[in-house]
Amino acid sequence: MITSTHNPKIQWLHKLQSQAKARREESAFVVEGVRLAEEALGAGWPALLVLHGEQLSARGQAVVAGFAGRGVPVETAPEAVLKAACDTETPQGLVVALKLQPLPRPSNPNFVLIPDGVRDPGNLGTLLRTAAAAGVQAVLLPPGTTDAYAPKVVRAAMGAHFRLAVQPMDWPAIQSTVHSPGHPLRVLLADSSDGQPYTQVDLRAPLALVVGGEAEGASPPAIALVDQRLHIPMPGGMESLNAAVAAAILLFEVVRQRAS
Amino acid sequence: MITSTHNPKIQWLHKLQSQAKARREESAFVVEGVRLAEEALGAGWPALLVLHGEQLSARGQAVVAGFAGRGVPVETAPEAVLKAACDTETPQGLVVALKLQPLPRPSNPNFVLIPDGVRDPGNLGTLLRTAAAAGVQAVLLPPGTTDAYAPKVVRAAMGAHFRLAVQPMDWPAIQSTVHSPGHPLRVLLADSSDGQPYTQVDLRAPLALVVGGEAEGASPPAIALVDQRLHIPMPGGMESLNAAVAAAILLFEVVRQRAS
Repeated sequence: MITSTHNPKIQWLHKLQSQAKARREESAFVVEGVRLAEEALGAGWPALLVLHGEQLSARGQAVVAGFAGRGVPVETAPEAVLKAACDTETPQGLVVALKLQPLPRPSNPNFVLIPDGVRDPGNLGTLLRTAAAAGVQAVLLPPGTTDAYAPKVVRAAMGAHFRLAVQPMDWPAIQSTVHSPGHPLRVLLADSSDGQPYTQVDLRAPLALVVGGEAEGASPPAIALVDQRLHIPMPGGMESLNAAVAAAILLFEVVRQRAS
Repeated sequence: MITSTHNPKIQWLHKLQSQAKARREESAFVVEGVRLAEEALGAGWPALLVLHGEQLSARGQAVVAGFAGRGVPVETAPEAVLKAACDTETPQGLVVALKLQPLPRPSNPNFVLIPDGVRDPGNLGTLLRTAAAAGVQAVLLPPGTTDAYAPKVVRAAMGAHFRLAVQPMDWPAIQSTVHSPGHPLRVLLADSSDGQPYTQVDLRAPLALVVGGEAEGASPPAIALVDQRLHIPMPGGMESLNAAVAAAILLFEVVRQRAS
């Protein structure tokens, strides 16, 4: 039983929750709550530490037992101490530190997402959740996009990290990925005003979709990669859509066209 | 110049920002920032009070002058006082109290949205923004859905309130609206697992789309109105989509079908 918030394990969890730099240096990130911990366990994700409160549901206990059975260290703590390791205001009684080790990309992906400069963690998490649902195979995260392993992103993504490759990358690496000689991807940019109406573009061939952040749109290195611009006609005449919403409409149009 | 946070106007604005009850009783709500104030002005929306800081951009000054020219009272305040009237942490120097008076519904709407039990303000705001962009003509807000005139909703909606009818309603009123004898609407429910794949349903006839909140889905009175359930097939196999994302995919499928 850990009884102090000064305990090094609590301090370590707190640092992983609050600092992107610590997550990078330690190659670790944190999930909170039974549901996400269960997804990580089900995915066979490597875990480093399990911390839980004194009251845990039967479902939570099963998850803890699952991690313990794989040799992951398990600690308990009273609620006040647990809280110091949590990002949420009302901790759900279970915190798991996981290895930050993105899933590998499939060798010839045909459905890739590049969220460029998305800074709002909730928006990025929703994007990842939607991408995973649509069957996107890899999300390439350029510099300037918020850290995909931050607690708010992880919460909003609802387990997407355990299903699709979510890979931070610099622009040269992104370029060589989309311009892979054996298997190039067509790079499409979601544009709020310019380009072809998205329903009139054939989206069945292998593609990478670039979605810019709300404030500034896509960055120059992203634009340099773009083969074609798409836009979503808005009969109601608003100025733009939320970035996660625009991405969702486009990703599911890809799904629709490929299914038919 | 208002110099105290105890000033009754500041207190009134603060109450409108923080209490749904106050907004209802006073028939007023608040927008912050030049962009939203400009949209309200452009829409000719009736305003009750303009409050601005000592430093205001030229664009902000033009908006203030526009309201003043319509006889709306204008006050100034130093930043610390302005902050007490704001919901955001970093106020943008301009706050406008507007009359809470939803736009009227068109008499024979063919595109209606019913967000049922959506509790997250950011989600509801994004829904309204998306609905306005898609050309939805009326959003009917049943009991249990978060107040559409709360500051976070208004911010995320990006001016949707000035473009489409956003009407709080009880279930009998919603029922008589969708079952209007001369112009009935087909009521479709977005379901996370059940129903017809959405791309296989003809969405061209007049319809009302019910989108349930994330936690509990649609409520019994909503389900009682439903003519048909739709779902969004997810090739990536996630459990569900964010409510605003699911609504966006369905609303823009309506747009796609009606345009073609």
